[in-house]
Amino acid sequence: MNSDNFDADVAVIGGGLAGVRAAAQLHAGGASVLVLEARDRLGGRTYTRPLGGAAFDFGGQSIGPGQPRMYQLVKDLGLEIAPAHVAGRKVLELGGKATTYAGTIPFINPLKLLTLQLILKRIERLSRQIPSEAPWDAPHASSLDSLTLEAWRRPAWAIGTEVRRLMDVVVRTVFGADAGELSLLHFLWFVSSNGGLMPLVETKGGFQQDRIVGGTQQISERLGATLSRDRIRLNAAVRTIRQDENGVTVESSSESWRAKRVVVAVPLAIAGRISYEPLLPTARDQIHQRVAMGSTVKIFATYERAFWRERGLSGEAVGTSGAISVAFDNTSNDGSVPCLLGFVVGRPARTFATMPREYRRAQMLEELARFFGPEARTPLEYAEMDWGEERFSGGCPIGNFPPGTLSVFGNALRMPVGRLHWAGTEIARQCVGYMEGAIESGDRVAEEILTVL
Amino acid sequence: MNSDNFDADVAVIGGGLAGVRAAAQLHAGGASVLVLEARDRLGGRTYTRPLGGAAFDFGGQSIGPGQPRMYQLVKDLGLEIAPAHVAGRKVLELGGKATTYAGTIPFINPLKLLTLQLILKRIERLSRQIPSEAPWDAPHASSLDSLTLEAWRRPAWAIGTEVRRLMDVVVRTVFGADAGELSLLHFLWFVSSNGGLMPLVETKGGFQQDRIVGGTQQISERLGATLSRDRIRLNAAVRTIRQDENGVTVESSSESWRAKRVVVAVPLAIAGRISYEPLLPTARDQIHQRVAMGSTVKIFATYERAFWRERGLSGEAVGTSGAISVAFDNTSNDGSVPCLLGFVVGRPARTFATMPREYRRAQMLEELARFFGPEARTPLEYAEMDWGEERFSGGCPIGNFPPGTLSVFGNALRMPVGRLHWAGTEIARQCVGYMEGAIESGDRVAEEILTVL
Repeated sequence: MNSDNFDADVAVIGGGLAGVRAAAQLHAGGASVLVLEARDRLGGRTYTRPLGGAAFDFGGQSIGPGQPRMYQLVKDLGLEIAPAHVAGRKVLELGGKATTYAGTIPFINPLKLLTLQLILKRIERLSRQIPSEAPWDAPHASSLDSLTLEAWRRPAWAIGTEVRRLMDVVVRTVFGADAGELSLLHFLWFVSSNGGLMPLVETKGGFQQDRIVGGTQQISERLGATLSRDRIRLNAAVRTIRQDENGVTVESSSESWRAKRVVVAVPLAIAGRISYEPLLPTARDQIHQRVAMGSTVKIFATYERAFWRERGLSGEAVGTSGAISVAFDNTSNDGSVPCLLGFVVGRPARTFATMPREYRRAQMLEELARFFGPEARTPLEYAEMDWGEERFSGGCPIGNFPPGTLSVFGNALRMPVGRLHWAGTEIARQCVGYMEGAIESGDRVAEEILTVL
Repeated sequence: MNSDNFDADVAVIGGGLAGVRAAAQLHAGGASVLVLEARDRLGGRTYTRPLGGAAFDFGGQSIGPGQPRMYQLVKDLGLEIAPAHVAGRKVLELGGKATTYAGTIPFINPLKLLTLQLILKRIERLSRQIPSEAPWDAPHASSLDSLTLEAWRRPAWAIGTEVRRLMDVVVRTVFGADAGELSLLHFLWFVSSNGGLMPLVETKGGFQQDRIVGGTQQISERLGATLSRDRIRLNAAVRTIRQDENGVTVESSSESWRAKRVVVAVPLAIAGRISYEPLLPTARDQIHQRVAMGSTVKIFATYERAFWRERGLSGEAVGTSGAISVAFDNTSNDGSVPCLLGFVVGRPARTFATMPREYRRAQMLEELARFFGPEARTPLEYAEMDWGEERFSGGCPIGNFPPGTLSVFGNALRMPVGRLHWAGTEIARQCVGYMEGAIESGDRVAEEILTVL
């Protein structure tokens, strides 16, 4: 193919946050771009849908202190934020028994609470040794990467199943996976990259603090709107990427495009489903074979009234016995659509799709009723989003590194392969796993390419 | 598409041992078949090439007692077996110091030897609790699957690095992976499925005992020859599988075929690179995202004379310091082409392809010279086979299950998905990971389909 026939300087594969941010930054830097998105929409793992007359985030939803890029971006794009509702007592269900509490510390046996605090301290201390930009360079990286989080915590947690179950909820919610699957190094890197454990679990003061009025998908849409319309191709699922000495040809099943450079901005597991010519280096290929998406289902129920608030409850709940691990008040910002949001995450999410639909709905509402009261059984509307059934995500919220991967192949994560460059929240240098990380990786890859174009 | 237009009753994707065996059995059972193979050859991970005038196996090579299907098949196909050369002393290099020994027990400190024996006993005892057909049903399956082999062995192996290094060699050679990557449940299942540890490591009496005269690829070729020639399509890399209520359409980038049923007989990681319509169930998709191929390189050096034999050495060596973990006398069966075979496996194999070719050759020959003497430096011919660079294998010898996979998703491994059926040594009910397992899985899937056609 003639090098004069480029469709763009850079083809960006994947119109999620990382991809559209990279495209917008490349465009701003003077490069011509083409965004190729497999779905019929931009946004990737951010996806905003109407329910009962308001817009709800069926994917990534919240931001919080420690994520400066997101706050700046939201402001630049003319979007507004609104804090999540937190007033009221929280619900904790441990081993089938539900109690309520105020503040951040649930009412459990003081000795167990102490254990929990000690474990959290130990995690924080260990995580501070992991360089966020290069966890494979951490002291004892290989050793930390040869254990699962479960292996590490097992002796420490002998003190009780309650502490264990609480941490299970945290791990499942953050990773969509269980402690027995995660590399300890990956876990510690994640904590390090996000400034500690507290941002991961807190609403007020943490990453669940603020929501975007109108939904997070608007961010990708507005970033996309900074490009001319013909620079974004929807329903363009890339199957093959061919590099030669002059450029790159990118092919879907029906079309092909030619660019000087390519950004692959899809989840690592999905990147592995593209065919590469020539074959990727072993290290890169092994990453694609290994990093598996978590399992996350979000369920939504809207109501006439926010009945839980009337009962003095915040709508936040933690459950250890049912399918729903955590729940939040997800009422629309103007208060017009009272809504409860439940997360089915990790192991319970993995068989979710195999349950008959009507049974699933009944079970989820029953679990909400156990947290918040019988009114939960009769919502106005009910909706669910199982990210495991999304062909172009493969799961949610993030791709997780099994043992023996990050320490061995990690330095290939951001390494360009010829004219191919990589983006995505899983390979961010800060706030890995969050929208903030996607933006960071988009900025990084745009800079990387602008210096060589 | 009209249901009258079937190209075959069954399309078999993958012309490795499992696929061609399934096709041959289906054909024998009265079904029409079509084998779609991505490469320009049958055989998959068995691959026989000429070197110095003799045929050598660049992939799967040996069989041994405990693999009855293979011995029967070899006989049925009119092939001959010849025992591997074992006479002479073996070389053991531990921490840079090479010694030689006779028999199966290397000369190491008796206390360390005792430790080693105790660990092996413990592994054998644990493995006997794992049902070969359904490891996910083992007692404590979930707990065993939440640890790496490394986490389990770490306390037991505190006694010394020598024992540890010896076991590293075994694990790397058998799995192409390190103890820090493997689920303990996967490891124990593998041992159980193959009747203990000894078959895995022994030459005489173990799975390395006998070779096929003329090479193992002949098995696939001769099985393929039981079908008419137009029933095998080479260079047919399947990209998409579409199921509907009447049948299945299978597509490469240029052609498509229609069948009533489909057997997917490619490694799990490679199966994940096919696009499925409708999307596979989450459990199956997660397996494809997770089970990663090991890393194995075979290197061959041929010589004028089998100089090591003249020195009283068998040609078998174990090394813990270099890239080559184990070596064997691989002289052609008629003795005409003296040959040494080295295995670079697990971690050292993962960067093999990044080393400059000439440097690589020099280093490998130098390591053989350290085992067997200076003559090793000047071979007649030198060849290497890095399975990590094989697009349609993704690595060798097998796909390994990371923690949290087998216990959670295992029961989806052989479960048909509509009209799709699964084969391959990784999902065998006996001798998982070996050619014997591939045959077993081919037989099982053929039977499964013949009952529903």
